Amino acid sequence: MKKLRRELEFLLYECLGAEELFSRERYLEHSRETADDVLDMAQRIAENLLAPHNVKGDREEPHFDGERVHLIPETKVAWEGVARAGFIAATFDHTWGGIQLPEVFMRASMAMFSAANIATTAYPFLTIGVANLIEHFASDNDKKRFLPALLSGRFSGTMALTEAAQGSSLADITTIAKLQPDGSYQLKGQKIYISGGDHEFCENIIHMVLAKIEGSPAGVKGISLFICPKFLLNEDGSLGQRNDVQLAGLLHKMGYRNTVNTVLSFGEQDNCVAYLVGEPHKGLHYMFQMMNEARIGVGLGAAALAYAGFDYSLYYAKERLQGRFASNKDPLSPQVPIIEHADVKRMLLAQKSYAEGSLALCLYASRLVDDERTDQEGAIATELLDFLTPMVKSWPSRYGLKANELAIQVLGGAGYIIEYPVEQYYRDNRINPIHEGTEGIQALDLLGRKLPYKQGKLYQGFLARIKTDIQKAGQGRGLSSVLAERLIPYLELHQQVSDFLLKAMAQNIDLALANASEYLDFSGRLTLGWLWLLQVRAAELGLETASDKTYYQGKLQTAQYHFDWEMPQMKEQAERLMGLNSLAYDMKADWF
Amino acid sequence: MKKLRRELEFLLYECLGAEELFSRERYLEHSRETADDVLDMAQRIAENLLAPHNVKGDREEPHFDGERVHLIPETKVAWEGVARAGFIAATFDHTWGGIQLPEVFMRASMAMFSAANIATTAYPFLTIGVANLIEHFASDNDKKRFLPALLSGRFSGTMALTEAAQGSSLADITTIAKLQPDGSYQLKGQKIYISGGDHEFCENIIHMVLAKIEGSPAGVKGISLFICPKFLLNEDGSLGQRNDVQLAGLLHKMGYRNTVNTVLSFGEQDNCVAYLVGEPHKGLHYMFQMMNEARIGVGLGAAALAYAGFDYSLYYAKERLQGRFASNKDPLSPQVPIIEHADVKRMLLAQKSYAEGSLALCLYASRLVDDERTDQEGAIATELLDFLTPMVKSWPSRYGLKANELAIQVLGGAGYIIEYPVEQYYRDNRINPIHEGTEGIQALDLLGRKLPYKQGKLYQGFLARIKTDIQKAGQGRGLSSVLAERLIPYLELHQQVSDFLLKAMAQNIDLALANASEYLDFSGRLTLGWLWLLQVRAAELGLETASDKTYYQGKLQTAQYHFDWEMPQMKEQAERLMGLNSLAYDMKADWF
Repeated sequence: MKKLRRELEFLLYECLGAEELFSRERYLEHSRETADDVLDMAQRIAENLLAPHNVKGDREEPHFDGERVHLIPETKVAWEGVARAGFIAATFDHTWGGIQLPEVFMRASMAMFSAANIATTAYPFLTIGVANLIEHFASDNDKKRFLPALLSGRFSGTMALTEAAQGSSLADITTIAKLQPDGSYQLKGQKIYISGGDHEFCENIIHMVLAKIEGSPAGVKGISLFICPKFLLNEDGSLGQRNDVQLAGLLHKMGYRNTVNTVLSFGEQDNCVAYLVGEPHKGLHYMFQMMNEARIGVGLGAAALAYAGFDYSLYYAKERLQGRFASNKDPLSPQVPIIEHADVKRMLLAQKSYAEGSLALCLYASRLVDDERTDQEGAIATELLDFLTPMVKSWPSRYGLKANELAIQVLGGAGYIIEYPVEQYYRDNRINPIHEGTEGIQALDLLGRKLPYKQGKLYQGFLARIKTDIQKAGQGRGLSSVLAERLIPYLELHQQVSDFLLKAMAQNIDLALANASEYLDFSGRLTLGWLWLLQVRAAELGLETASDKTYYQGKLQTAQYHFDWEMPQMKEQAERLMGLNSLAYDMKADWF
Repeated sequence: MKKLRRELEFLLYECLGAEELFSRERYLEHSRETADDVLDMAQRIAENLLAPHNVKGDREEPHFDGERVHLIPETKVAWEGVARAGFIAATFDHTWGGIQLPEVFMRASMAMFSAANIATTAYPFLTIGVANLIEHFASDNDKKRFLPALLSGRFSGTMALTEAAQGSSLADITTIAKLQPDGSYQLKGQKIYISGGDHEFCENIIHMVLAKIEGSPAGVKGISLFICPKFLLNEDGSLGQRNDVQLAGLLHKMGYRNTVNTVLSFGEQDNCVAYLVGEPHKGLHYMFQMMNEARIGVGLGAAALAYAGFDYSLYYAKERLQGRFASNKDPLSPQVPIIEHADVKRMLLAQKSYAEGSLALCLYASRLVDDERTDQEGAIATELLDFLTPMVKSWPSRYGLKANELAIQVLGGAGYIIEYPVEQYYRDNRINPIHEGTEGIQALDLLGRKLPYKQGKLYQGFLARIKTDIQKAGQGRGLSSVLAERLIPYLELHQQVSDFLLKAMAQNIDLALANASEYLDFSGRLTLGWLWLLQVRAAELGLETASDKTYYQGKLQTAQYHFDWEMPQMKEQAERLMGLNSLAYDMKADWF
């Protein structure tokens, strides 16, 4: 965790200028010192309350005995520790008991939690999301009833969106809400894949449910958002009767196991009380406003797991003696640590590139959330964040998984057995390209929505930001100016491809979107190139001043790895994209 | 399994001309009819004895109660079924009770077994390998003692190579063999990751152990091969006393679970009897002679799992309704099967390309084993097989895993839960890039040994074979001539890169080998391009004559997928290889 902590500090202070935030109105009470205290506390919680039961939560996964759901008791202890230390409330207003911590520090803390134990971290992660929704869109009365309980950890939260028959197609959900005389609603329907949907480690569970009010229009426009508590609340806020939300069953997963995954039935006995959030038919709109942050969270979790695997396989590669250089023919000479083998170094370098690049991307995005809230030019930050979000969610998910695959490979046979931690990271991470919008969904979002949005204004802002950073880096000497120069043709290539696809979408939207996933990956490569450029600039400063130069030398080498091993693929991707490659599009179902 | 069966028949009869084998002396008793009977029986065994306990073997993995190892009872039933049907003995001489089945049919049968249940299939797979070693190198006496029992399934076999402290570096093993007055040896040492190392589903277990005879030279030259049975045999062949081979523990794996994985102690009580195979110090040499076949087996297992995942996700994608085309804005229109979405088709096409390409490669290699045994120009087949083997082992392992990753992605959330089969395929397949020589080892074998071997003769043979096939395909019209044309520049590029690396190895072997893994992947892309060309030629014939044309249209589309989506990457790989990219090589351990 020490190594990850160092990495986070580099990104926060040396690369993203997070200290600047402390001079903003909202964050005035914070300073480098208080922020470091927060990170210290997060690190202690990660090390002492989360990491120790990461394996146990996987081996002894949640189970349902027909009446109750059982989780290992460490889950409750960790939940309470996280809540008591104020991490659920941290970024919220003082009014609600928060400390108005900048988002980027909250996320950095979550990165440590996730690296230690991503499955248990899911509970506070989801609860923060629910609290955010309520704070932004619920009535004052509901805020008062639910927010303090959520933020203090008395209640936990879930997001109940998906239904078995609909999956990603939220337009087609069938859960129904019926208005009651008292202004509340009755829900009826079933939701699937609900993380944290049932447990007993806190007093109550608040489900945020997407449903259609009777008589709503078809499609996404008819979706509304509801608060549906497991236990109803009495007038005085104390727990009242059990609401008609029933556990229909648990789903058992390949990984991420200590996050209980449930099927929930709402209103089986026609008595499921729920409260509308905001206005009718705006449920999806509300959800989407919170989506950026949820998606940063997924990306960051994937990045943290990538880092955890990198960290362990690095440790292993330094300890493990095996083999000799090809140039050494003496079988009596001592074996070398495997980190001396170039192929092992390549696998570590790739992991370092994926993990650190992903962390940088997610913290950059978190910093934009802070700008959105507190900067005079918050609207610009919002637009950039909107454009980046599909990549923030999907790049770390895809390449973080790849990193974990390489961590296993570094360990060899040991990587495949459960006595070593890397196989669990790999299993845990496999969900990230799926939940909170699959890769395919992110790809459609980027190419089909974000690129053309506002006549390309989001995209123009993205390009402008990169150009500015290229210009800044180009003024220096050293590696940053070299990489800035190398980034330019890729930026131009990206513009060319994007212009082409915009026109193609106007012609035949289905064909032009057919290779959206390729465009997403293509865009991710460019974006990471830009973030590596930012890191190199910071590392060059570090090299000038710091006494421990090895950390910074590693940064320079890893940045070059991204430029030499990942960026060149953009050329062939561009060819396929601009050729409107139609192999998949043309394929017939019965040809398979 | 029906779909896989169809695929295997295409490869065997339409693509690889396996019928031609029946006219060779060794295989005269076989015909299309008898071979199809064999495939029928294999399919029945796969469907009835193997597939039904694939999940159970994963959930209720082998365990050790301190005295005995327990496996689910279906393992014994399957083992006996496979043995009784003659599959362990099938390719062996009549003398030993075999039916002299061509290797390629045996492998096709194993593909069905592996797709149904790779973990249980490991037992016959390993036993065949052990029987092969004994048949080729053991004394007549040992052949008589062990071979019939192995081939009939009374005994099973293991390969005991790896030691905890040495891993892939066999030169450094420390297990010692001491010659006894009666000509036998006493073994002392510990072996790890021994698949099938202890169980009770048959009478005896025969371990093939690599050890060093006291006073042997250091390094690989000092390694000898021994037969070490769990139970010694009496003069009359009946089971005698328990040998001093003790189970030190089980290792629990991420997947492949019904293959019991053991740590074995030899000679803890100084009474472990073993028999030298062949001559002293030639153990590794013997092993390597069998390595090609073992590595084909690993590749084929990976390909079979890739196919199983493809098959299931295809079924799912046809059944599952979700979403609409981007061009359809009517939320009341019915949802479409997800196979209609181009991005899902892309994921299926990629899987089809990886799975079928891998199957083609492995069966091509198996066909070479038959040529090696029975063709007048067997030496040419051996050389080609030697060159291909690193790719046969590693391409299906790497891309088969990728295929399984995509199978999960097609299913979305369902892919991540254990109620669906694809997550297990993914876990099972993760071992294949590791065992029987990791990817890194295969890469060093290809670039460091096979490429320069015999002044490049193996490589020249490989190029000549591809050129011949390009020429043949170039004579036709249609897609095959187009792809033949497209293959030429890649072939030339491969030659250029190989020539360059040969020279570079002469200068600085460690640097030139640093990117061996990249060269392995680069070579695999070319090799698969060639195999897709062969498949296209066969498919064009099929299209002319067959009534069901959809199968062949799918082949043509998938071949183009490889050419459009996989081959172009060779260009940037060539640049990195010919630039002797030294980022990994130059990286320092303390920069990480």
